[in-house]
Amino acid sequence: MRPISWDGATLNVIDQRMLPAKVTWIPISGWKDAFSAIREMKVRGAPLIGVVAAFGLALETKRIKGSSINAIKEEIRKIASILETARPTAVNLKWAVDRVMQAIQSEDSADGVRNRAIKEAEWIMQYEENTAKRLGEIGEKLIHDGDVVLTHCNAGSLATVEYGTALSPIRLAVKKGKQVRVIATETRPALQGARLTAFELMKDGIDTTLISDTMVGYVMSKGMVDLVMLGADRVLRQGYVINKIGTYQIAVLAKRHLIPFYAVFPWSSVDMLTEVGDVVIEQRSPREVEMIRGRRIAPKGIKIFNPAFDVTEPELVTALVTDRGIVYPPFEKGLEEADKKQYVSADMHI
Amino acid sequence: MRPISWDGATLNVIDQRMLPAKVTWIPISGWKDAFSAIREMKVRGAPLIGVVAAFGLALETKRIKGSSINAIKEEIRKIASILETARPTAVNLKWAVDRVMQAIQSEDSADGVRNRAIKEAEWIMQYEENTAKRLGEIGEKLIHDGDVVLTHCNAGSLATVEYGTALSPIRLAVKKGKQVRVIATETRPALQGARLTAFELMKDGIDTTLISDTMVGYVMSKGMVDLVMLGADRVLRQGYVINKIGTYQIAVLAKRHLIPFYAVFPWSSVDMLTEVGDVVIEQRSPREVEMIRGRRIAPKGIKIFNPAFDVTEPELVTALVTDRGIVYPPFEKGLEEADKKQYVSADMHI
Repeated sequence: MRPISWDGATLNVIDQRMLPAKVTWIPISGWKDAFSAIREMKVRGAPLIGVVAAFGLALETKRIKGSSINAIKEEIRKIASILETARPTAVNLKWAVDRVMQAIQSEDSADGVRNRAIKEAEWIMQYEENTAKRLGEIGEKLIHDGDVVLTHCNAGSLATVEYGTALSPIRLAVKKGKQVRVIATETRPALQGARLTAFELMKDGIDTTLISDTMVGYVMSKGMVDLVMLGADRVLRQGYVINKIGTYQIAVLAKRHLIPFYAVFPWSSVDMLTEVGDVVIEQRSPREVEMIRGRRIAPKGIKIFNPAFDVTEPELVTALVTDRGIVYPPFEKGLEEADKKQYVSADMHI
Repeated sequence: MRPISWDGATLNVIDQRMLPAKVTWIPISGWKDAFSAIREMKVRGAPLIGVVAAFGLALETKRIKGSSINAIKEEIRKIASILETARPTAVNLKWAVDRVMQAIQSEDSADGVRNRAIKEAEWIMQYEENTAKRLGEIGEKLIHDGDVVLTHCNAGSLATVEYGTALSPIRLAVKKGKQVRVIATETRPALQGARLTAFELMKDGIDTTLISDTMVGYVMSKGMVDLVMLGADRVLRQGYVINKIGTYQIAVLAKRHLIPFYAVFPWSSVDMLTEVGDVVIEQRSPREVEMIRGRRIAPKGIKIFNPAFDVTEPELVTALVTDRGIVYPPFEKGLEEADKKQYVSADMHI
């Protein structure tokens, strides 16, 4: 299930807010479509957000007219800086937009800029498909025959271009004949676990059990979980994992129950520069908490706090699974070494 | 907001499944009404369940005809043993039904049995009102001016006859002029926090913020919580707290963040006999997880696990707040001493 379709001229994405009830494709023809699709969570998942932003910007370049190449580039730069703010926490958005901006620098004609921008967006899409596949090959070794994997939010095909991040190793393990079962948390408020993870794993015939977020401690205390695998929206140099709200408490519980905790993500989610105190945790609309599928579940006027992400400390993380290999503690050393490596996906590059 | 109304002849209870959208009263005229109200969670909350069961059984005695007083008592015994199974985890249900059964033993006429059963149900109702009030007086000392209290599920008026268990100290603290704010978890799957706690605290003008269950770790890590106060469906001799699913993980997080964790409950929730391995954790319908207010949130056919309660180990509990005083570790010693005390509410007895 690819959530994105590109035929060389037009981009369409699945409106994930409607899943699993309806599969609705929506067109992305420029930066405004991309901005609203990302902000309103029609598309979500750190890698996919990056891809959609890159295409939004690249498609927009076709429209921009200017008196000079510098004026055109200046206009693109302005749009890029707005687009980057669609969601503040996942670093892939900025990474992808920066890549497009970097790519067009050396172009000296409007046509050159346009073609180069599209090429770069295509590269990013292929990169995310390749890294997702590679994450499967690397992470699959951590899953043993008979294991039950607990996952949170959706780190599947629907968060990427294909395969997924945390779900990619699970898919490959099953494909290789290992008996693997999944426990998916529903992931309030936006219910990505119930709506997306359950949906795509069921479609693949993978044995999946859905639980409410309140049940994580219980299933762990009952010995029902062998390992935790989930994605990441941003990983810092020291190994801090910034991911969907609820990740931190799952990590605390995993540690208490001596259950390995793995974050699985492409290198595009790594941020070697930002300090943990400077990461902006997105606060989203109260409506996500007080309304579910159009139905009010709380009294009108109640105060609501709705942070979309949290921060998991390195000491709670067993290993970071990246497309450049598995990084064990001390994470800073391991990530710095991996950062110097050739892109493992460069040779798979289109 | 009393969820129960008794005029000496008829009993009505609020159908809490409809809250906060609608306040609908439903009549309880015998054991079958009580059984279905409890099982379907029209009424919930350990103390309230006990009260409704007692009245259901007592009102039923008015209908039972038999050839002898022994035949009548035997019939009542049969009904009592079914009624006790409406929900298996909270001990108050069994406690209340046992009290009614005990009370009628010495009666030797059908009328005597009927009058005595009603009197006992009234006693239980008054007992729960008194203990809830007493819990407020005792627990209020644990809340300091300026504190933010995190609570889970609904341990308020709607779980009792009035005041609540965990919410009773909060109400009294506010009444005494302390600045107290509450963070309420929404408490999936049945959303008692969003629907009931937020509703009744807002009505009382108490500053309340609603969060999703995924956000507990985040608010604690941000220093936004000073103490945890929640109810209990059953507390064992060693201090195990069996309470709404999600309680255990809140306790683990509280311990990590050095936040005091208090369970607040009447003595009717104490079970000095059962071993922790013998407590039945109720498993409820998958529908509670996959449907919210009539809307499907997960793919049809997905496997679901839905335990309604969990077990919090004594080492995670700072203190047990009972109507017989605050019990600190070692809990077994403290609970045994309190068990020998006169009922503190006996003098408040109607």
